Amino acid sequence: MTETAVSMIQELKVHGRTTNERAPLTLFWTASGFECNVSGTELWVEVEVTYDIYEPWFSYTVNGDWIGRQMLLPGRYWIPMFRGMNPEKIKNVRFYKDLQAMSGDGNSYIHIHALRHDGVFYPVEEKKLKIEFIGDSITSGEGLFGAKEEEDWVPMFFSALRDYACLTAKELDAEYRVFSQSGWGVYNSWDNNRNSAIPKYYKEICSLMPGEENERLGGNQPHNFSTWQPDVIVVNLGTNDVAGFDQPEWVDEITGERHKMRREENGSFCKEDVNAFKGAVADFLKTLRECNPNAQIIWCYGMLGIPFQMSIMEGISSYMEKSGDQKVSYLQLPNTDETNVGSRQHPGVLCHKQAAEVLVGYIKQIL
Amino acid sequence: MTETAVSMIQELKVHGRTTNERAPLTLFWTASGFECNVSGTELWVEVEVTYDIYEPWFSYTVNGDWIGRQMLLPGRYWIPMFRGMNPEKIKNVRFYKDLQAMSGDGNSYIHIHALRHDGVFYPVEEKKLKIEFIGDSITSGEGLFGAKEEEDWVPMFFSALRDYACLTAKELDAEYRVFSQSGWGVYNSWDNNRNSAIPKYYKEICSLMPGEENERLGGNQPHNFSTWQPDVIVVNLGTNDVAGFDQPEWVDEITGERHKMRREENGSFCKEDVNAFKGAVADFLKTLRECNPNAQIIWCYGMLGIPFQMSIMEGISSYMEKSGDQKVSYLQLPNTDETNVGSRQHPGVLCHKQAAEVLVGYIKQIL
Amino acid sequence: MTETAVSMIQELKVHGRTTNERAPLTLFWTASGFECNVSGTELWVEVEVTYDIYEPWFSYTVNGDWIGRQMLLPGRYWIPMFRGMNPEKIKNVRFYKDLQAMSGDGNSYIHIHALRHDGVFYPVEEKKLKIEFIGDSITSGEGLFGAKEEEDWVPMFFSALRDYACLTAKELDAEYRVFSQSGWGVYNSWDNNRNSAIPKYYKEICSLMPGEENERLGGNQPHNFSTWQPDVIVVNLGTNDVAGFDQPEWVDEITGERHKMRREENGSFCKEDVNAFKGAVADFLKTLRECNPNAQIIWCYGMLGIPFQMSIMEGISSYMEKSGDQKVSYLQLPNTDETNVGSRQHPGVLCHKQAAEVLVGYIKQIL
Amino acid sequence: MTETAVSMIQELKVHGRTTNERAPLTLFWTASGFECNVSGTELWVEVEVTYDIYEPWFSYTVNGDWIGRQMLLPGRYWIPMFRGMNPEKIKNVRFYKDLQAMSGDGNSYIHIHALRHDGVFYPVEEKKLKIEFIGDSITSGEGLFGAKEEEDWVPMFFSALRDYACLTAKELDAEYRVFSQSGWGVYNSWDNNRNSAIPKYYKEICSLMPGEENERLGGNQPHNFSTWQPDVIVVNLGTNDVAGFDQPEWVDEITGERHKMRREENGSFCKEDVNAFKGAVADFLKTLRECNPNAQIIWCYGMLGIPFQMSIMEGISSYMEKSGDQKVSYLQLPNTDETNVGSRQHPGVLCHKQAAEVLVGYIKQIL
Repeated sequence: MTETAVSMIQELKVHGRTTNERAPLTLFWTASGFECNVSGTELWVEVEVTYDIYEPWFSYTVNGDWIGRQMLLPGRYWIPMFRGMNPEKIKNVRFYKDLQAMSGDGNSYIHIHALRHDGVFYPVEEKKLKIEFIGDSITSGEGLFGAKEEEDWVPMFFSALRDYACLTAKELDAEYRVFSQSGWGVYNSWDNNRNSAIPKYYKEICSLMPGEENERLGGNQPHNFSTWQPDVIVVNLGTNDVAGFDQPEWVDEITGERHKMRREENGSFCKEDVNAFKGAVADFLKTLRECNPNAQIIWCYGMLGIPFQMSIMEGISSYMEKSGDQKVSYLQLPNTDETNVGSRQHPGVLCHKQAAEVLVGYIKQIL
Repeated sequence: MTETAVSMIQELKVHGRTTNERAPLTLFWTASGFECNVSGTELWVEVEVTYDIYEPWFSYTVNGDWIGRQMLLPGRYWIPMFRGMNPEKIKNVRFYKDLQAMSGDGNSYIHIHALRHDGVFYPVEEKKLKIEFIGDSITSGEGLFGAKEEEDWVPMFFSALRDYACLTAKELDAEYRVFSQSGWGVYNSWDNNRNSAIPKYYKEICSLMPGEENERLGGNQPHNFSTWQPDVIVVNLGTNDVAGFDQPEWVDEITGERHKMRREENGSFCKEDVNAFKGAVADFLKTLRECNPNAQIIWCYGMLGIPFQMSIMEGISSYMEKSGDQKVSYLQLPNTDETNVGSRQHPGVLCHKQAAEVLVGYIKQIL
Repeated sequence: MTETAVSMIQELKVHGRTTNERAPLTLFWTASGFECNVSGTELWVEVEVTYDIYEPWFSYTVNGDWIGRQMLLPGRYWIPMFRGMNPEKIKNVRFYKDLQAMSGDGNSYIHIHALRHDGVFYPVEEKKLKIEFIGDSITSGEGLFGAKEEEDWVPMFFSALRDYACLTAKELDAEYRVFSQSGWGVYNSWDNNRNSAIPKYYKEICSLMPGEENERLGGNQPHNFSTWQPDVIVVNLGTNDVAGFDQPEWVDEITGERHKMRREENGSFCKEDVNAFKGAVADFLKTLRECNPNAQIIWCYGMLGIPFQMSIMEGISSYMEKSGDQKVSYLQLPNTDETNVGSRQHPGVLCHKQAAEVLVGYIKQIL
Repeated sequence: MTETAVSMIQELKVHGRTTNERAPLTLFWTASGFECNVSGTELWVEVEVTYDIYEPWFSYTVNGDWIGRQMLLPGRYWIPMFRGMNPEKIKNVRFYKDLQAMSGDGNSYIHIHALRHDGVFYPVEEKKLKIEFIGDSITSGEGLFGAKEEEDWVPMFFSALRDYACLTAKELDAEYRVFSQSGWGVYNSWDNNRNSAIPKYYKEICSLMPGEENERLGGNQPHNFSTWQPDVIVVNLGTNDVAGFDQPEWVDEITGERHKMRREENGSFCKEDVNAFKGAVADFLKTLRECNPNAQIIWCYGMLGIPFQMSIMEGISSYMEKSGDQKVSYLQLPNTDETNVGSRQHPGVLCHKQAAEVLVGYIKQIL
């Protein structure tokens, strides 16, 4: 049995937006991890796990099929992936961070140090298609584990492998990355927090993680977009923004800044706030285009209803009008109802499958 | 956080055929384990795991929903089940041994020592229905994990949670036990071994596990059938017996005994051997009835084809004729084809779902 | 057996937009017909059928279940609905015109004269919900009969009973009407004809049927909207308008008027034409609101792709902005692909089912 | 337009067991009819229909897709199949008798006289596989039309096109024939009538139709089995035989013969009667083999429960033992429950689909 540092395995494929550091490799985002093709009878991975509140979970596949899923304890230790297998055959193994980057816990990380094995590593073939998924809890796979009645907001109920992003990428044989945060929006979070807006963090590696550890790990560094250019960007945002209309005002404890999506007396959405949201949509599209000059951008919406659909479309429309950009479109995804709901009132496995089907059909059409 | 020995938790429900020993509780069979209702924010389980060749795996559910699955390393250590949850709410947790009793490794065991928690245990409600499943690799859930192309015979590809036994019990809200061994039959194993016949071991707790450790653990002790009387017994055997017609003769290395299911010159099954098989079917039914006076016995067959169907029926028929026993019946289960196959050419998840559906419908009818 | 003129049967429910004339009752639109609750062993209907080119077809249900479907020959004659049934039981019978109003054949009509029966008529209960469906070939159910390879544009391949309108109404237990024409749009037809725009004909009973016979039958009379106010209007238009970009210019043979949806040199849609389309969307919404002050209006689109989605949304948006009307929304319906296509490259039975499911979910939500 | 007598159309394919007479062609059994490949714009069929009580119904397909279904009035007249189609293209048209041979109405027949057309007939390709289905109401497609609550026993609720026989043949691209009678069994009918046993009539063309008209038409003539040898025979009988245990004794009004399937005092089936049933199963298999030397015979059972399964198997077993015939097997079909039931408590469309799926899989395996 040999132990090889990740930095020494040329054939290792790293998934997800991260730094150049490989000693160890730090996993920030949902579905980030590594993939390898390896012969031999056994494979182990050496992880180093830290957290204060929210423990990370991981899942892994062997030859594309889900094998295991477990909670990670703090510390540095070895985890077995497989053993007792045919030494000659090459096995494809992929390790997935099941949990999103947790902006609420600046110490919640998985680091990958090394692999222990008795075989040989072989290159992982590059996919012809690359997709980036940008979203909120839906894209973070929240509610894809756990019984329907579950209400606790805990890492256990997040899944990288059951969500529409993973299913879509698998069906299209695409490499994919996820950039998502539960509760966040384009313009504000579900509870009107203006800082919890995805676009503010898009240009750095993982700047929504707070604190010194993230600084040390390089999460706040600018992301070099030239290293990975997606063919398709799927934005699935807007669901939380609209929740703000029915939530109390947010006050920034430090700056005193205040914000709330307001309703008119007749109950309709305040025009000014809707316009600000539309502006945020248009601005984010501009940012996305600057960073990804050739990607087809698909703004998806609808897995938890379509109350803000017209405003999203108007935001898109205004961006397209101004920019002349023709590679942007809007796609409605299937809604959640009692037949396809998961835990925590979120879309369940069936809803994510249905969404992936619609998205796959659409992407095939436009490419 | 409190650590409580399993032997001290009155409210703990033990699943699966085992001894009376609780310090620790030894898990022998597929789907054996424990179940508890517990409040508090965290729950951990202290396991002790041994094996020479075949490492055990486990899965667990929280409130009935599958949460985790992992390979178990040797040693005695704590594993987390959940953390960070609402302290007030009572969580139902069930731990499943994913791997069958491994007759090929006399040291492959999971022992449960204790639970660590910060809540209170509550009783687990007794189910109104009890079902025992007796079978081979199909009932051991072989092939329910792993990609279709997998051929390695390793513990990783066995599943207690995805098999028709678990699905049937869940749908009927029944407590269930599994008594099964991959490759074995009623009369002989797939490779003509006359010792690998399930009926020979039915009266002891787990006598198909070899060696001193099993002796020490009590696996060779007679099973006290009065402690757990099933309402329904599902026998799913016969698939391996028929394989012997196309396998070489078996020779017992110690006794020199020889056996082979033979074909006539025209290719048809040798009558004498078929009759011996039928006799074994009838004899096993007699045994089952002696041990379980009131159970409905359903002999199932068909998930890997029905070549031996007529002979099984004739065995049943001859038993019923002789005994006058009316509570025995035969049920064909859905076959495996390219649409529902799993790994290792075994029935896949879809096939087990289809089988459970047929079985549930039938059990509802006869009860 | 009694023969009773339709005008004499108070309990008869007439479906579909038509005149006040009942001697006979004329059926213009898809899914128009009659419904009755009647006891007795037999029921016959006396029809009078005319056409020059396109023969009408009808289907009927007994107690909600589809029973028959046939081509109608010209002439006046009796057709049996059922016979030999239990005389006491009340049967619900509904007769559906399977074919749309055929603007290409001014003599294509079904008239209903009388019913022959040996039972008693009972009132048909009023539904609590009323829905109007306005559309093109999709809403006319084109392609819902016939093998995939069929290309003939013939009445045989139109179906009132398999289309999403019927399925949606059935699921919601709603009364419904269909106002649709194959090949037509909001602003122009698939071949750029400006006269083949649904909005031009919305205010009359059935003014898109040409010629003297329609004049005589009253199809050109204004429709009295106060007689039937829908709770929901589903507009499913826009699919044909966009086809004009790739079709030759249309020239009106009489007035010499010319029209074409043009492309820019770079292949994109000509802005001026797109704006005219948006205007037509907005104008039609204004008309719909004038005629139906309280209806929820849902503009649906997507069963044959979403190339014009942004423009439809912008048209809706501009209408809502100007009018302040909040009871208008946009809903994307499932697309047609190789798995759900019917004959003539149109959405098939499965696609219409999927569409109905989405629409039902959405209507339940907004009501 | 040309009118051509059926006897003059060499290219016409006749389906179903019938006489050699073609002027006209008489249709006796479910799914009997004709098939043709024809060019031209129109096709009409001249039928002659008679009945006293039970009117026949027919369905037809164009290019394999179901197009129409209607009740047939008495008399001789022309019915349109299609019109307005592309004159060049060859259309495949098949006419199906939807109703079984009605042993309760000696005058219920459809005769086919001629076809009217403006095209040319082309040969119908012979299928490589031939299947005969022998059964009761299930195989006659009873309950495949009509709402669940329907209880009237009328022709309207029988369907040739929705039943498992048609679906199986379509999936296997096989030619098929149906020999079936509602309420009948192998040994006795549901109400203990010993004359209503399918085997008694198997050797003649259609001798279960009573009266002079059948004599005149040749229905009582011996069937020449050499003209059509099936590769597979599906027997789906036994469901009615067992009903006799709970029905009153039958008395033959003419001969005074009496019969009843009896129960023992403890409620179990009377052994003597069960043995007589088993004998009837064995005897029928002997007859089938005599008439069809090379066919695979599959005895199916289970679409309305499996109470008589063991007895059927024992009958089969005893036949196989005595004859040495190896080309006989037993197959259980999916049961009817609340999710797949049709009208009149019979298997519905979904149940027939499920049955066809199982049967198709099995036939593929054994051929």
